[in-house]
Amino acid sequence: MFITFEGVEGCGKTTQAQLLAGTLESRGQRTFLTREPGGATISERIRAVLLDPASESMEPWTEALLYEAARAQFVAEVVKPRLAAGYIVICDRYADSTLAYQGYGRGLSLDTLRTLNEIAMTGTVPDLTLLVDVSVQNGLARRHRGGDVNRLDLAGDAFHERVRNGYDVLAREDPIRWRKIDGTGDIASVEAAIWAQVVPLVARLSAATR
Amino acid sequence: MFITFEGVEGCGKTTQAQLLAGTLESRGQRTFLTREPGGATISERIRAVLLDPASESMEPWTEALLYEAARAQFVAEVVKPRLAAGYIVICDRYADSTLAYQGYGRGLSLDTLRTLNEIAMTGTVPDLTLLVDVSVQNGLARRHRGGDVNRLDLAGDAFHERVRNGYDVLAREDPIRWRKIDGTGDIASVEAAIWAQVVPLVARLSAATR
Repeated sequence: MFITFEGVEGCGKTTQAQLLAGTLESRGQRTFLTREPGGATISERIRAVLLDPASESMEPWTEALLYEAARAQFVAEVVKPRLAAGYIVICDRYADSTLAYQGYGRGLSLDTLRTLNEIAMTGTVPDLTLLVDVSVQNGLARRHRGGDVNRLDLAGDAFHERVRNGYDVLAREDPIRWRKIDGTGDIASVEAAIWAQVVPLVARLSAATR
Repeated sequence: MFITFEGVEGCGKTTQAQLLAGTLESRGQRTFLTREPGGATISERIRAVLLDPASESMEPWTEALLYEAARAQFVAEVVKPRLAAGYIVICDRYADSTLAYQGYGRGLSLDTLRTLNEIAMTGTVPDLTLLVDVSVQNGLARRHRGGDVNRLDLAGDAFHERVRNGYDVLAREDPIRWRKIDGTGDIASVEAAIWAQVVPLVARLSAATR
């Protein structure tokens, strides 16, 4: 089973992914928590190019192709082997982030980005994607409190609004894979809302492997 | 005007590209001779990832996406500005190499590679592509005499035969853009055969800008 977390900066998905992994582990499920580039050496090297300050003049499509190159290696080297070994793989951001940030956020062609995602994923589509939804103001305020501000945080509210609306469209287009979770409450109540969505899948998985 | 050279290893295209650039220059044409990554800093950094020995476990699609990311930056930063400034740009290998080597040679999907090429080229398609054709034996023998053997030279004759045949298919599919040149003769006779193909284009260019 492959579960991904998505959402705007500061929505709380990283915390929630960790909590979900812990809960599944404590119930005896072999769980693997990761995020791109996930320790794949080649993907880390590609990320270094992306994060290099000298890359300021990087073309939007160069950036998108680099993210997808890193993803292709991550999927083959990290995600697929763990899934094949029977782990529940939980990933903090995945291909949908590219659609939300570079498609809806930056305005690159969604069709083309979907094609690139397909090349990189080679069929490894999440079984469940949890969209942790908070307002942009709420999310950025949390980030700033944490002192953990990156380049994307400074891209402006309008950009982050487009990203949030993009996630909303994606979730509505595929309600079987996506579940939208209200992320504005306290950690425990968001955790409970997520667990309610995951339980049926885990039950089905246990039944299938019994 | 944008002219590209293609062909198997050791076909002589690098020499011929230099000769053509020199001839055009001597006739007063502003000419820019290049090859990927062409000095685009980001593309050079991407190439370093591709050439790193630690990249031995690189997935075929990771490799293809990295080449295209480097190409996207090269086109935007090197090729387009020179074409816009009125230069004749001559490039030693370009997008067709990806189709020949990774498509026909390695067996990756040609349709998908064409899509990636389109993303990277963003409309910058060559006006003329010169396929310098020699037999694989002939080409590899030249390379070995030069002592300049790289990873691709060691990929086996069958691989290079697939690449050569791939180029042949590409040239036949688009006879308006492609010209196949017999590269087996001496340097001067190949140069003359290439010049015969370039002259009408240059004449048209001069007429258009007069």
